[in-house]
Parts: sequence; structure tokens; C-alpha cells
Amino acid sequence: MEQTILLAHGGGGDKTNELIGRIFSRHFSNPLLTADDAALLPLGDKTLAFSTDGFIVSPYRFPGGNIGKLSICGTVNDLACMGAEPRWMTCAFVLEEGFPVDELEQIAASMAETAKKAGVVLVAGDTKVCARGQVDKIFITTSGIGIKKEGVATSGSFAKPGDAILVTGDIGRHGATILLAREEFGIEAAITSDCAPLWHLVNKALTICPDIHVIRDATRGGFGTVLYEIAGQSGLGMQIQEERIPVDGAVSGICSMLGLDPVYLACEGRLVMIVPKEAREAVLAGIREEEDGEKAAIVGYVAGKEQAGRVLMETSLGTVRLLPKPTGELLPRIC
Amino acid sequence: MEQTILLAHGGGGDKTNELIGRIFSRHFSNPLLTADDAALLPLGDKTLAFSTDGFIVSPYRFPGGNIGKLSICGTVNDLACMGAEPRWMTCAFVLEEGFPVDELEQIAASMAETAKKAGVVLVAGDTKVCARGQVDKIFITTSGIGIKKEGVATSGSFAKPGDAILVTGDIGRHGATILLAREEFGIEAAITSDCAPLWHLVNKALTICPDIHVIRDATRGGFGTVLYEIAGQSGLGMQIQEERIPVDGAVSGICSMLGLDPVYLACEGRLVMIVPKEAREAVLAGIREEEDGEKAAIVGYVAGKEQAGRVLMETSLGTVRLLPKPTGELLPRIC
Repeated sequence: MEQTILLAHGGGGDKTNELIGRIFSRHFSNPLLTADDAALLPLGDKTLAFSTDGFIVSPYRFPGGNIGKLSICGTVNDLACMGAEPRWMTCAFVLEEGFPVDELEQIAASMAETAKKAGVVLVAGDTKVCARGQVDKIFITTSGIGIKKEGVATSGSFAKPGDAILVTGDIGRHGATILLAREEFGIEAAITSDCAPLWHLVNKALTICPDIHVIRDATRGGFGTVLYEIAGQSGLGMQIQEERIPVDGAVSGICSMLGLDPVYLACEGRLVMIVPKEAREAVLAGIREEEDGEKAAIVGYVAGKEQAGRVLMETSLGTVRLLPKPTGELLPRIC
Repeated sequence: MEQTILLAHGGGGDKTNELIGRIFSRHFSNPLLTADDAALLPLGDKTLAFSTDGFIVSPYRFPGGNIGKLSICGTVNDLACMGAEPRWMTCAFVLEEGFPVDELEQIAASMAETAKKAGVVLVAGDTKVCARGQVDKIFITTSGIGIKKEGVATSGSFAKPGDAILVTGDIGRHGATILLAREEFGIEAAITSDCAPLWHLVNKALTICPDIHVIRDATRGGFGTVLYEIAGQSGLGMQIQEERIPVDGAVSGICSMLGLDPVYLACEGRLVMIVPKEAREAVLAGIREEEDGEKAAIVGYVAGKEQAGRVLMETSLGTVRLLPKPTGELLPRIC
């Protein structure tokens, strides 16, 4: 392993996993330490979900949201992916000296609005300030506690051959939005981040089918990275159809121009669900009735052990190709 | 209020309170939102304590600890101050590109060691990386869940006239250590930070006297700031005797040289307890038997409403003076 931290160690891909394995998993090893979106903690007759996420997105304001909204959505969705109803959150701010107070107020207002929408309350916080040049404007870390729905058990290892692969909306909008907001490419397009709290979608899906096998939010590394993770954890393959994957026209256009694959662009309001075959149409219909679920689609199925660890894509020409392995987030500071 | 964030907004004093009041309390207002060290959350027949703290200390290594040890102690002690046994923690790292991996490993090892000592487990984490110059080396945010001891209720507003003011050890060591570690003053002295996890002291004290009225950790702003906070919350006065306050000789010496008052230097392993008069000697004796409690002392008493909001100090000459009002942490990035 390298002697110093690289940007790729924060990209959510192989380098991040290497760092976690070499440093954090080794030192913090205990039966409750999770590699999932949130830890599950037994307490009396309930199971708590507990999760944390740091947000350093640049720029801190972008079409469709800001770092405050993102910081609520990220933690709400991590809890939701464990089948846990988000209940309480904390937030810790690190601010740069000179940061405009009215911008901070707008960020706080977004957090409050998003928390209300997600049905979660902010119960404690912390504020630290660094001198100019010691932190880039504003970082927020949120943590959350949720209460797991009874009878629900989701994990990447629970995928079964024949399960349907469902995605709750068009992919890659957050990544494309941040890319354009950086103004390094001189491209303008009417794209907004998909950033949204999604417990209501999870709750709807689990009410229709309590036995959903896997729920993941496709953040750093995007939809493709999540599929490779599930393929790895389950020891199965994933087969998807390119033409079924919902992608906004503007996002496709930008990807073509820049040579990017939308399946690897970050989302902040999209879930991947691995659903038992017999429940797939009912779950899809239920999700489509909900806000931020209107464009949900079934995009493929879980293949058997003979495809273990592989993600195959049927192209619109009818050929099948191996999706290139994910390399971690393309852009630093996407979230 | 100012239009931009000042260093003082992170100092833990009046400016921090102004920012919290103007922005966070206003937008995040809800019945569970706490101004105490941790929020208390009813769940079935239990009460959870939930708290978060960001750590940006500079330098990140100092005599007696590092940012990792500090990040565990800070959150453990916030939970302990609510009478809650710390159980589970999360940690979120923001690292600067180029940060040495072996330093990160030492920090993680300190975190694991301190967590073990405190009886808490790290259950989830997050890692983000910024490009050089966008974050100063390493920031860590920890969050924790504790379970409140039954029958215990502590709050700054619960102080009663005649209660004893107890401090669990000599004050100001963390602040003095960081001051010297900055190497701006060219002073050398054998001082180490008091940084320590303190649930064992709280548990011991509450076992001896479940009716302890207030427990606070004297961090940003030090012992004096905590006394002013309790005086404000209870609408009573605080009367302390200068010669009873434990201060290390080297800390006094540095304070004399630099014109500082040790009562306003930060601690990271010292509690202030407001104890019913009849239990004070038993609680003191119990705490003195414990590690990090050997130098505990009773340093004064809670005065009546006629002294409301005032902290009076009897000097070694027998005169009584009003302790100057705290102005928030003297140094930025103390924790």
C-alpha cells in the first residue's frame, strides 16, 4: 500500500476498501463493526441502525441542493438501506473563517426542510471553526439512528439467482450535476442533482414485500459499483439490459461528450433493490406511485454462480459485454 | 451579528452560543434538540443519549495524546455527563491528500485503545479525502450512543444552594499542552494533556450518590466557563476558593508567563460535578480511588439567588473577587 493518502482513497472504490482493510477494520475489529451502510445494534426487543457520513462536496451549492440537504439525505438513506426507519440525527460543522453567515443559514434551512420531509429530527450538533485556508469553506458530518423494521433483513450476500434488479430512478444525475457545477468543462445543461431522502420508498417496498433481499444507495461510484459489490458479496452474477437503465437525455449527452459511463456517475437519491422475482412487478408499481420513484425500472436479474462476481450488460445491439470494473469515484469531493 | 464566520464562533463561548441561537436552534427547533452535552431519546423502557463532536485539533499529535484519542474521549465524556454509559460509536475522517498512512495508523490504534479502555465499540465509519490545501491534515468527527443509568437526571439547572463544587483533577493541562505544542511561544515544559475517557468516574460517583445534580466536562473554555454556564442555567451563584483548585505547577508557571488564567484553559479529561452537600466527602473519596481521579478536589459551593449568574473566587489573600466573564476559548483548534 502507498505511504501517503491519495485522492483515490476517498473515492469509494478499491483504494478506499484497501485503506479500510489495512487500517480501520484491523484496528477497530469487533463483531458489530459493519461494512454495510449502517451498523445494526440489538437493544432489548429492538434493533437500532447507526450510521455516519462526512460531506465535503465542492461546490457546496449545486442545482437541486446543497451540502446541507445532501448531509441529511446521505445518512437517512444509509439507515433506510438497512430497513431502518430514520429517527434521530446529529450534525457537526467545520467552518472556514470568513464563511458567509447567510449561506450557512440557507444550508441550515435546507437541512431542516429535508429532515422534516424525511421524518427525522436533528437532536444535537457541534460547530468548529478553522482559520482561512485550513478547511475549504464548509464540511458537515451527520450521524443517524434508525429503528429496524421487524422481520426485515437486507444484505448484499442475500441476493438469489433469478431475483430482479430494480433501480428507483434515472441514474448519474448527482455526479453529472457536480461535474458541470465545477465549471471546468464549459458545458451547460439543465441537470439537477437527484439528491433526496428515500425512507418512504424503502418503507413502501418493504410493506409490499418484506423479503426484499438487498437495498443499496448508489452514491460514490454509482450504480455500476453497487452491482459489482453485490456480485462480490453474493458470489453470483448480475445481468442488466442497457436499454432498460433509466438515464436522463442530458446526462447521456454529457457522458458521450466526456467519454464517461453513466453507470459510474454518483447518485444521491437512487436505490438499487434486489427483489424476489414473484414480487418484482408489485414492488415496481408501488415505488412508481411515490415521489422520487416515478422513473423506477427493473433493469435486469441476478445470474447464477457460473457468472460469480461479474456484471454483464446486454447492449441495445443485442450483444453481451462485461461491464468494466469500477475504479472508484471519478471526481473527488462528489459528496 | 457578523456577516461572516469568525474564529470566535468556534470558541465555545458567547459567540458560539450566538451562532447556535441565530442559526441552528432556530432552524432545527424541536423538543429533543439539546443544549446539553448529548440529547436524551426515550426508546421503550430505556433512554438513549446521542451526541456528536468534531475534532480539528492542531497539531494533531501532542504530549499525552493525538486527535484520535481525543475524538474518542470527547464523545465518551459527553455521554457520561448525561449519566449515560457509552456503548457504540462511529467515526468519520476527512484526510488531506498526502497525509502519511503510518500516522493514520497510529491515530487509529489510539482510537481503538481508548475505545477499549472506555468500554465502547466503534461500529461504523466513513472516509473522505480532499486535495492538498483543502483540509489541514486530518479532521475526525465522532458520534456516540449511550444508555442512561436509571434514576439519574443531571442538568445545569438542577444545582441547589449549598451543593459542593467538585472537580475531578488538576485543570488546564490540555490547553497548556496544545499552547506549547504550537511552538509559537518558545516555552518548554513537561506537561501532558489530561485527555482521558471518564465514564468510570461518573459511574463510580453515581453509584455512591445517584442524585448528583450536574456533571459537565470542562473542555473549550475550561473550568471557569462551565461554572458560568451552571450559574446561568440554575439562576444561582458559584463560590470557589482559589487555593483549593488543583493546578499543576508547570501549568501555573506558563499561565503566569503568558498572562493567562488556568481556569479558562481547556481540559479534555476533567469533570465538574455539583454534588449534594451531605454526599460530597463520599463522592470525593470514591473518585480519588480511580484512575484520572486521584487529584479530585472540592473547590467551593453553590451560593444562593442573591449571587445569581455570578462566579466569585476567594483568593489566597482572603479577598473575594468576581471571576472575569469567559470570552470563549483563547486558542483556535484546541480540540
